[in-house]
Amino acid sequence: MDDIETPAVIIDESIADRNISAFQKYCSKNGLNLRPHIKTHKLPYFAEKQLAAGAQGITCQKIGEAEVMANAGIGDILITFNIVGAAKLERLRALSDRIERLAVTADNQHTIEGLASAFANSQRPLNILIECDTGAGRCGVQSPEEVVELAKLVSHSPGLSFDGLMTYPPVAGAAAVNDFMNRSVSALKSERIKCNIISSGGSPDMWLAHEQPEATEYRIGTYIYNDRSLVERGVCKFADCALTVLATVVSTPTPTRSIIDAGSKMLTSDLLDLDGYGHVLEHPGIRIASLSEEHGILHHDVDTSLSVGDRISIVPNHVCVVSNMVDTVWIKGRTRELTGLAVAARGLVT
Amino acid sequence: MDDIETPAVIIDESIADRNISAFQKYCSKNGLNLRPHIKTHKLPYFAEKQLAAGAQGITCQKIGEAEVMANAGIGDILITFNIVGAAKLERLRALSDRIERLAVTADNQHTIEGLASAFANSQRPLNILIECDTGAGRCGVQSPEEVVELAKLVSHSPGLSFDGLMTYPPVAGAAAVNDFMNRSVSALKSERIKCNIISSGGSPDMWLAHEQPEATEYRIGTYIYNDRSLVERGVCKFADCALTVLATVVSTPTPTRSIIDAGSKMLTSDLLDLDGYGHVLEHPGIRIASLSEEHGILHHDVDTSLSVGDRISIVPNHVCVVSNMVDTVWIKGRTRELTGLAVAARGLVT
Repeated sequence: MDDIETPAVIIDESIADRNISAFQKYCSKNGLNLRPHIKTHKLPYFAEKQLAAGAQGITCQKIGEAEVMANAGIGDILITFNIVGAAKLERLRALSDRIERLAVTADNQHTIEGLASAFANSQRPLNILIECDTGAGRCGVQSPEEVVELAKLVSHSPGLSFDGLMTYPPVAGAAAVNDFMNRSVSALKSERIKCNIISSGGSPDMWLAHEQPEATEYRIGTYIYNDRSLVERGVCKFADCALTVLATVVSTPTPTRSIIDAGSKMLTSDLLDLDGYGHVLEHPGIRIASLSEEHGILHHDVDTSLSVGDRISIVPNHVCVVSNMVDTVWIKGRTRELTGLAVAARGLVT
Repeated sequence: MDDIETPAVIIDESIADRNISAFQKYCSKNGLNLRPHIKTHKLPYFAEKQLAAGAQGITCQKIGEAEVMANAGIGDILITFNIVGAAKLERLRALSDRIERLAVTADNQHTIEGLASAFANSQRPLNILIECDTGAGRCGVQSPEEVVELAKLVSHSPGLSFDGLMTYPPVAGAAAVNDFMNRSVSALKSERIKCNIISSGGSPDMWLAHEQPEATEYRIGTYIYNDRSLVERGVCKFADCALTVLATVVSTPTPTRSIIDAGSKMLTSDLLDLDGYGHVLEHPGIRIASLSEEHGILHHDVDTSLSVGDRISIVPNHVCVVSNMVDTVWIKGRTRELTGLAVAARGLVT
């Protein structure tokens, strides 16, 4: 650890393993299929561990991520995104042809017509989940009536198969999710459309997933590493945070200000409503007050004794965007040895 | 342009060329050596254009960036960072041995002693600029007395050569820079220490650089592409912004909300005190209200007619962090043809 150059992203494998296992246990106990979102780690290595622990399949946000996971032999993938445009549809079709089971979400006619056209002559239908806006204000249809309309469109499209509903719920959104899903399932029933899957998710409410009895599946990313935002919400403790950024103090201009070699190109500017840009494990009183691109500006008491050359470990506000900043993460194994691992699905922006 | 997959970073080369030329002209007219900061583009291609236009050398923030630029044959490099740690010092020495002229900044004894040790037996001395905090509150010594102390330490170190002073000034900081630099030069003079270079910089005040008559050199990064933050400050116009993010509308859930396929993993969460996460060139009234990792949430009037599949061009708040998110940028040449260019110095976090 002393030899590694900073800044560096370090992942404590024992903690990640424990996190994978704990939430898998919770899902199994509550009859939920777990479908981890790999956007957090972007590593086939951890996706395989999640599947080995009992996950049903994985979630990706980009075709590029899914292609990397398929290359690693992963066969059950849900892409929770409206896939739009000829080039992407062609890649999606090729991906579908080489894995066991592919599903995507859609919330509009244009997207569904594009998918239908790309899969018209497919031997195996593409599974479609209709995305529902249950209050998060991102994608998703606004009403059960729209659900039925799009489910019919899917059902009437050769090459597509209506598989169910998906939502990215608002925080503390169980009641809203249950209400929307109940009404949608009823509306679908009265049209004799069968809904196999109701997919919900989100890390902030992960331990309340059982309050969404309509859901059959839970998608979750951050839980494998955890981060400061989840600690602040009470979802986990700092001891459960597997990913830290190792940084070096490079300047101590005043007794209450020190500068580290990790800035917004490492910790990112994600605040997630928190104060400061991360939590310094060795000195919890330090405030990471601001970031420029390659410098982090620490404000602290005069008696926080930091010297140039000191190294500190930071739990970032939001891990998913941090692991995306580096080509390599360092896995700290049980022997405390570090192994560099290429973040295979990083930078695949399409 | 219609065939390219989104999200994508597009660079209009004519605009970049014009920006390079305009500020070079300004610096030449005002007797300032221009030393562009390559952190913005991370491309040898544009660094070479900046040098061909008359720049004195380049600025880098990381050894990794400097190594890529040296590999491309660039011979005069300033790294504006306290280089700390054995591995980095070894790389710095190797870099120095293979280029014409290398300089670094330092603001503390620990850093200077490390540099002195790494360059003790060097044939060619490493040039050192003492970094001064003129009000930006990042790195830098706090007083002319500290400048003298460190300049003496450098002068007494075989292998190091005291070359002058450097500051990253606060916005609208000309008076503060002039005051600090005047006092420091006087203090150095009374110790018979010659100060060859006074290096200032920053894009927000680029057209006021002549108000810092003490400065001999100006470092600047953003000016080559420009961005929304500089437009909002009145430094340039949107027509001067060379870098845009091309995104596709993937969902229109309500008449006043649309979703694009560019989120914080493309536009980044950098706000720079602005409202929203970028400027939509085709629809200036749209507000990019929030970002999740791969979605941008647009709020707009009911009569902003966006459809799924539409493409929009976004001027980001802060270009330097956006070009760092992608492995490839697309250069739009004079014939409007697009050429992919690998962002060679991206991801070199050390």
